[in-house]
Amino acid sequence: MKKASTYPISPRGPADHEVRDQIVAAATEHFSRYGYEKTTVSDLAKVIGFSKAYIYKFFESKQAIGEMICANCLREIESEVSAAVAEADQPPDKLRRMFKASTEASLRLFSQDRKLYEIATSAAKERWQAVLAYEERTRKLLRDVLLEGRQSGDFERKTPLDETTMAIYLVMRPYLNPLILQYSFDYTEAAPALLSSLVLRSLSP
Amino acid sequence: MKKASTYPISPRGPADHEVRDQIVAAATEHFSRYGYEKTTVSDLAKVIGFSKAYIYKFFESKQAIGEMICANCLREIESEVSAAVAEADQPPDKLRRMFKASTEASLRLFSQDRKLYEIATSAAKERWQAVLAYEERTRKLLRDVLLEGRQSGDFERKTPLDETTMAIYLVMRPYLNPLILQYSFDYTEAAPALLSSLVLRSLSP
Repeated sequence: MKKASTYPISPRGPADHEVRDQIVAAATEHFSRYGYEKTTVSDLAKVIGFSKAYIYKFFESKQAIGEMICANCLREIESEVSAAVAEADQPPDKLRRMFKASTEASLRLFSQDRKLYEIATSAAKERWQAVLAYEERTRKLLRDVLLEGRQSGDFERKTPLDETTMAIYLVMRPYLNPLILQYSFDYTEAAPALLSSLVLRSLSP
Repeated sequence: MKKASTYPISPRGPADHEVRDQIVAAATEHFSRYGYEKTTVSDLAKVIGFSKAYIYKFFESKQAIGEMICANCLREIESEVSAAVAEADQPPDKLRRMFKASTEASLRLFSQDRKLYEIATSAAKERWQAVLAYEERTRKLLRDVLLEGRQSGDFERKTPLDETTMAIYLVMRPYLNPLILQYSFDYTEAAPALLSSLVLRSLSP
């Protein structure tokens, strides 16, 4: 590990993205142990063995590091959800799996890594860019499944697609958003199945 | 206002329920000004001019006073919602109004009285008896509307009534529960109409 005074910049030094990855990895580890809120950039600098100024060359603030970690977590959730959706053949089943996988992935993030969940909570509260983009992509995935179901004749086509997408997104949102999920633990077991069935009844042609 | 040392107990003193009402009224006023969390029973005693011991004769804790205030607020929301439902003739319209009136009443409680909302937040977080009873009565009202719609032929009857009730309750819950509502302000305008329509599509026979 480098000393705080060493600036590892040289023609053969690590590439920028490697340094960024190194900072993010160390910050993930540190945040997950001591919490995001309580950690300062100075703390991180000490742990990584970089100077604070060197970290600021790569990330303009603690939040920028948090955003990167958050984006990584959300990408993980997304790829789980996409994989679950891709496994199913029929649009109704895709919708069920999307709901179930999203809830389970969000729950796992919460229970496995309480301290990292704190980042997700700050992210959701302060509407970080990574969260807005994640929500947008979730609506996009949902829209694609709905469109497929309309084309296959599984879903009704009278309601405007954007309205259906937004309404179903609102039904799913309490189980996707970490801020809300923490108040829904009593229901996370039953909700995905109950709500998917309701949504599918609403989609019947 | 009575001095802290005066015990207003006499054969012709106020009835118990009058004293309770007086404590609740003073506490409501005080909490809404200084917040529920920050106020102690000693503070209340000072303001009302009762001794702390005298207050404890009527309420075993600050939470017991808070529960009473909370129950009053919830009763107000409930009577607004019931009135809105009663105004409509047809079950589908009753359902729409129930959703809209619940969201509006919860929002009004939030925006008019931020400090009292704090009580509702504690209540929802700690699952106070008054909240559990309110949730139960909300599900009952919903069930009655659904039953009426099944009898009138407006709603489908294949899905077990308890399942339908619970699923629709889960759709409405983020807009009824003050803890969750505070994270849904972006959607409170559009959500009641969008979600009522989705729910009604799911109920079509």
